[in-house]
Amino acid sequence: MQATIITIGDEILIGQIVDTNSAWMGIELNLLGIQIREIISISDDHQQITETVDHAMKNSDLILVTGGLGPTKDDITKQALAEYFKVEMAFHEPTWKWIQAIFEKLGRTTTPAHKDQCFLPKGISVLKNELGTAPGMLFERDNKILISMPGVPHEMKYIMSNGVMEFLKPRLSDQVLVHRTILTAGDGESRIAARLEDIENNLPDEVKLAYLPGLGQVRLRISGKGTNKTQLVTKIEEIKTQIVKRLGPLVFGYEKQTLSGAVGQLLNDKGLKLATAESCTGGYIGHLITKVPGSSAYFNGGIIAYSNEVKTNFLKVKQQTLDDFGAVSEQTVTEMVHGTLEIAKVDVAIAISGVAGPGGGFNEKPVGTIWIAVGNRSMVQTRKLNLFKDRLKNIEYSGSAALNLLRRFLLEVK
Amino acid sequence: MQATIITIGDEILIGQIVDTNSAWMGIELNLLGIQIREIISISDDHQQITETVDHAMKNSDLILVTGGLGPTKDDITKQALAEYFKVEMAFHEPTWKWIQAIFEKLGRTTTPAHKDQCFLPKGISVLKNELGTAPGMLFERDNKILISMPGVPHEMKYIMSNGVMEFLKPRLSDQVLVHRTILTAGDGESRIAARLEDIENNLPDEVKLAYLPGLGQVRLRISGKGTNKTQLVTKIEEIKTQIVKRLGPLVFGYEKQTLSGAVGQLLNDKGLKLATAESCTGGYIGHLITKVPGSSAYFNGGIIAYSNEVKTNFLKVKQQTLDDFGAVSEQTVTEMVHGTLEIAKVDVAIAISGVAGPGGGFNEKPVGTIWIAVGNRSMVQTRKLNLFKDRLKNIEYSGSAALNLLRRFLLEVK
Repeated sequence: MQATIITIGDEILIGQIVDTNSAWMGIELNLLGIQIREIISISDDHQQITETVDHAMKNSDLILVTGGLGPTKDDITKQALAEYFKVEMAFHEPTWKWIQAIFEKLGRTTTPAHKDQCFLPKGISVLKNELGTAPGMLFERDNKILISMPGVPHEMKYIMSNGVMEFLKPRLSDQVLVHRTILTAGDGESRIAARLEDIENNLPDEVKLAYLPGLGQVRLRISGKGTNKTQLVTKIEEIKTQIVKRLGPLVFGYEKQTLSGAVGQLLNDKGLKLATAESCTGGYIGHLITKVPGSSAYFNGGIIAYSNEVKTNFLKVKQQTLDDFGAVSEQTVTEMVHGTLEIAKVDVAIAISGVAGPGGGFNEKPVGTIWIAVGNRSMVQTRKLNLFKDRLKNIEYSGSAALNLLRRFLLEVK
Repeated sequence: MQATIITIGDEILIGQIVDTNSAWMGIELNLLGIQIREIISISDDHQQITETVDHAMKNSDLILVTGGLGPTKDDITKQALAEYFKVEMAFHEPTWKWIQAIFEKLGRTTTPAHKDQCFLPKGISVLKNELGTAPGMLFERDNKILISMPGVPHEMKYIMSNGVMEFLKPRLSDQVLVHRTILTAGDGESRIAARLEDIENNLPDEVKLAYLPGLGQVRLRISGKGTNKTQLVTKIEEIKTQIVKRLGPLVFGYEKQTLSGAVGQLLNDKGLKLATAESCTGGYIGHLITKVPGSSAYFNGGIIAYSNEVKTNFLKVKQQTLDDFGAVSEQTVTEMVHGTLEIAKVDVAIAISGVAGPGGGFNEKPVGTIWIAVGNRSMVQTRKLNLFKDRLKNIEYSGSAALNLLRRFLLEVK
């Protein structure tokens, strides 16, 4: 089964709201093996609604429409759909009773607009909306299904979860979709692709591999389509194992894992405590670490050593080191690690210092020069990055690179 | 001018990522007076790309395409566009030089896939992408413009801001759109709307006021449309002045200012130095402050006091205080401020401690209980927040609230 999602509302087109409904529906439909062909966002405009619905009815078996069902100007969607399906409107008593009950509970009175809302196209299935006044409407024609729902996310989710899913399940073909995502850090998309070339060339027709790059990270998504779910899952798991084996320690996790989550798991497993010393990232690494629920189990805290005084006073970096090599140097970040281990009384420390920009760069150390160090009491590893001109990108990329250096360090230590 | 946005990538259709690019482009194009007709998300599929581009070329003057330009195999946008516009591919030497320069800087070697990336459709305008390897491509035909950009948000934004906007400006009609944005923090959308009711009811027809709520902040956008720019600007500036006067210290800035930028400006103006002491936000406030270019002029650094040991050892919070009142208390954050002022030798300090969740809550202090303090050597102000169940939302909202408390404090002190 193939589906099209149509979201209606000017607020999406002018960028006032981000359309998160479609992603939610995409995940839910995929779990049922329904493939999304297209997501289309359009204006509250009668003609455009008709044209878009017609386009979708020609190309998909299932059309999910959200938006334009409230009590104000929005009867446009309902009118346009009724005309498109050539059905008349009729007063729907159960919806009116429902709206009256809600308003009674709230101690408010209904307006004429609410009564108008109860005129629904004849002959459709009405899907109950326990979280609002506009019900879902299910149209069927030529073996195709169109379902119209309100655009308010929790109302849409309620109707999807309580009416739509159950309606769809018996109608699904036995075609299943299976996805697996492998998360990597530390190498670029094309270098990873080069290493996987033979695996990719030998993929069976029903399996696809996609590369989804981010700052310093690349996600690999293996997708398969078939009728025998067990066989398909086995096949995809085999390919996943092959890729993971090939990429070795580049892989830090699967599905919705994060790099800081993977680091946290390693620290937990090894019973180690961490502290941070950040200059150019100014707290960003601490934020990444503490976004993870339960991070207080392995993260003691850190120092944001933005000024040189904080580096010398708190972290015991020698003034001589700053004078001889500068704050952005291998020597300084190494001393920052030693200082952090000592004062925070932790097992592992990570330190970073660099020129995030736009100011502060010079010939020898241009904007984008960043030093990272990670270590314990017996070993410190360092890495120099030559990054970009953009301040925020430098902060985000170097934060990710620092966490990855820490991860690789933790994989090595006992 | 009317535009269609096409975003390409299976990751959008299966809900793996939420399409935030379209909303960003929607806002930017609106500022230029360009109306978005449709946003269409489709698969990495040659035929579907061709059909969708054809549909868009028939209905819009400007088509913005994102996604599908990376060096790996799942990217077929470029081929589909070249075929649609009936142009051949040719090796583009400047792009190759650019890619080589990036890789040299990163100390890495290019792969054959990178060379393939430099084959671009002939006769197009190439838009430089300083943040990645795939340039933007601008096609023109029959007075219509199609611009293809990578899907990585910061790369798309770079190309839009540095190439696309300048290209479009001289091509726009004489109808002008004028927007002014007022930024507020510390009160909700509906309470602000109630205070502005009379101003809003008296707006001239050509002027609209929109409320754009965020976490702890509300942006007010005044938009006007007309043919006489000078008159329109005068009118909108008058309304802006009225609103700003009414809202007083709720207003922290205009247009693209940030709350941390506004705080930075106040610190700079008053010649004050700041340090932070963060527990539940784990470095997020430091990150917000140091995202601002030039923040090293007024930000010395901070302590991420995640564990109680760091609170007592570094920040001199008394063990007795923690025992009597707990880490999440007015007493503790007040002592954190005093400790930070002393050890970081700064003029102003901010401290935060709370239960971000999902664990750690109990009857008296459920998840979402957060204490903030800000002060100098003569005065400390505190605030208690009762927030949400969601960890990340708690971190982001309380970070914003803390910066706003600091801003209000700085407005008061000499």
